[in-house]
Amino acid sequence: MTDLAIDFADVEDAARRLAGVSHHTPVQTSRTLDALAGRAISMKCEQLQRAGAFKFRGAYNAISRLSAAERARGVVAFSSGNHAQAVALASRLLNVPAAICMPDDAPSVKLAATRSYGAEVLVYERASTDREAFTRAVAAERGATLIPPYDHPHVIAGQGTAALEFLHQVPDLDALVIPVGGGGLLGGCALVAKTLNPAIRVFGVETEGADDVRRSLRAGERISIAPPSTIADGIRTQSPGRLTFPIIQRYVEDVVLVRDDEVLDALRFLLLRAKVVAEPTGAVGVAAVLQGRIPIDCVRLGVIICGGNIDPPLLAQLWA
Amino acid sequence: MTDLAIDFADVEDAARRLAGVSHHTPVQTSRTLDALAGRAISMKCEQLQRAGAFKFRGAYNAISRLSAAERARGVVAFSSGNHAQAVALASRLLNVPAAICMPDDAPSVKLAATRSYGAEVLVYERASTDREAFTRAVAAERGATLIPPYDHPHVIAGQGTAALEFLHQVPDLDALVIPVGGGGLLGGCALVAKTLNPAIRVFGVETEGADDVRRSLRAGERISIAPPSTIADGIRTQSPGRLTFPIIQRYVEDVVLVRDDEVLDALRFLLLRAKVVAEPTGAVGVAAVLQGRIPIDCVRLGVIICGGNIDPPLLAQLWA
Repeated sequence: MTDLAIDFADVEDAARRLAGVSHHTPVQTSRTLDALAGRAISMKCEQLQRAGAFKFRGAYNAISRLSAAERARGVVAFSSGNHAQAVALASRLLNVPAAICMPDDAPSVKLAATRSYGAEVLVYERASTDREAFTRAVAAERGATLIPPYDHPHVIAGQGTAALEFLHQVPDLDALVIPVGGGGLLGGCALVAKTLNPAIRVFGVETEGADDVRRSLRAGERISIAPPSTIADGIRTQSPGRLTFPIIQRYVEDVVLVRDDEVLDALRFLLLRAKVVAEPTGAVGVAAVLQGRIPIDCVRLGVIICGGNIDPPLLAQLWA
Repeated sequence: MTDLAIDFADVEDAARRLAGVSHHTPVQTSRTLDALAGRAISMKCEQLQRAGAFKFRGAYNAISRLSAAERARGVVAFSSGNHAQAVALASRLLNVPAAICMPDDAPSVKLAATRSYGAEVLVYERASTDREAFTRAVAAERGATLIPPYDHPHVIAGQGTAALEFLHQVPDLDALVIPVGGGGLLGGCALVAKTLNPAIRVFGVETEGADDVRRSLRAGERISIAPPSTIADGIRTQSPGRLTFPIIQRYVEDVVLVRDDEVLDALRFLLLRAKVVAEPTGAVGVAAVLQGRIPIDCVRLGVIICGGNIDPPLLAQLWA
């Protein structure tokens, strides 16, 4: 195992750190979904996780491992999405000062939500600024620790606790279906699932146009794509992580693709029939199942609804 | 107890009939809601009940008690809302033919949903037709049994199972906060709650303009109001039921009021922060709590989210 960034014990350790802090999110089923898909679908409801997405698991685990001196100097992160709120909330709970670097065109609700958790928000001009360089400069100036969104062992281990819970809640799954952006959730969960049950099959889901992980798996190496345009903003990565990719290569059978309009259909189905509030990235797994993209011999499917922070304008547009 | 339509044993019997058929719906909490309300709020998620509302409990219990001969002749109901889908689904599960009388201006999605459960839909002209007379004529012609939406002992007993589950899930509640239209849910749940814990306090919630139950309680008799105009369509009754009112009189401390705009605020909060899909009637309890309408010494509140069948156009309007 030493060639991978984490092993199973790291996830077990993360689970101990998260106990009583993160939500043990429920698993939901829908007879209507089962009938439409012709399979038995269990949905792991990470939209009900603290701050509305699985990201809290990794952020909290990473920050909880900092030394007292590191904590005093604070943490920095860059994100316009769920990682921002996750780092902000985890930092508040651990009494660590947090600065979140967000682009000037981030939705005002996300800026407000991040500030509401007590974080300092540093706004940069998206057009003219290299966000990683900007964030590194902030970190260097303050002596703060950068908490990356996925490519960090403690972040990956934290995300893996979602699968640890899920497979205790529903032990007899044939396959897991998991959204993949940078690969923290998919990598951590795949490692856990295959350790607990080597027979389980693990699939990632990307949207068409944001298929960097699928391409990388096929090429046998990390491929970088042009900045993707997709409604699933959590999947808009250009390449899998340096640490997450080897884990995905070892444990993930395939990454399947869905179109944006299929994601919107899944979002509408989840809201109206299953009463599940998902954001676009959170709905890609259900979209893949509804579109028949998962091998037909996988009968008991576990799908991770990874987040529910949908923007109000999109909610309105769903029925425009 | 003989002066009331049901007693506790009727609810226990209903629970046995519903076991393995209705969903044991989860209880959800939200730290953000607790912080806003200054109380500990537990939400009983009946929007996750089969057919999307608590109505399935009463409809299934009532139909399950019909004799073989009665079942063969079928059931009839009138409803443009959740009772229609509940009777349709319960009938299909019990192999009973069902005819649902719906007005010609009912939303097409509700007509389609009712038909999708296998029920025959009989459309009447709302402007020119007395719906109860129309339905009774259909029932008489077919020898079918009318399943009323609330004023029936087996319906009230079925709805009471929601509180039976809730108080087993969260035994130490100070008060229950429950939407009230015709009073089936409020009556059944109040009887259960006060039987299990005489110290618990039970509050109904209506919208302003649809305050027939509040007025009736104050008058000490059933008051009939003009057809109410409110966004909470499950509350648009003109008077409490003949059977439900005496139960409410005995067990319910008060009925509090919320405005439609407060209901919309609660709907938005539930969707965006708690990730709960409620219909307007389902959100009135949370609205009452957020607006401080429940006595301040009730610290541990149980709120029933009674349904989640929100119309897509309203979902879009929430952020217009």
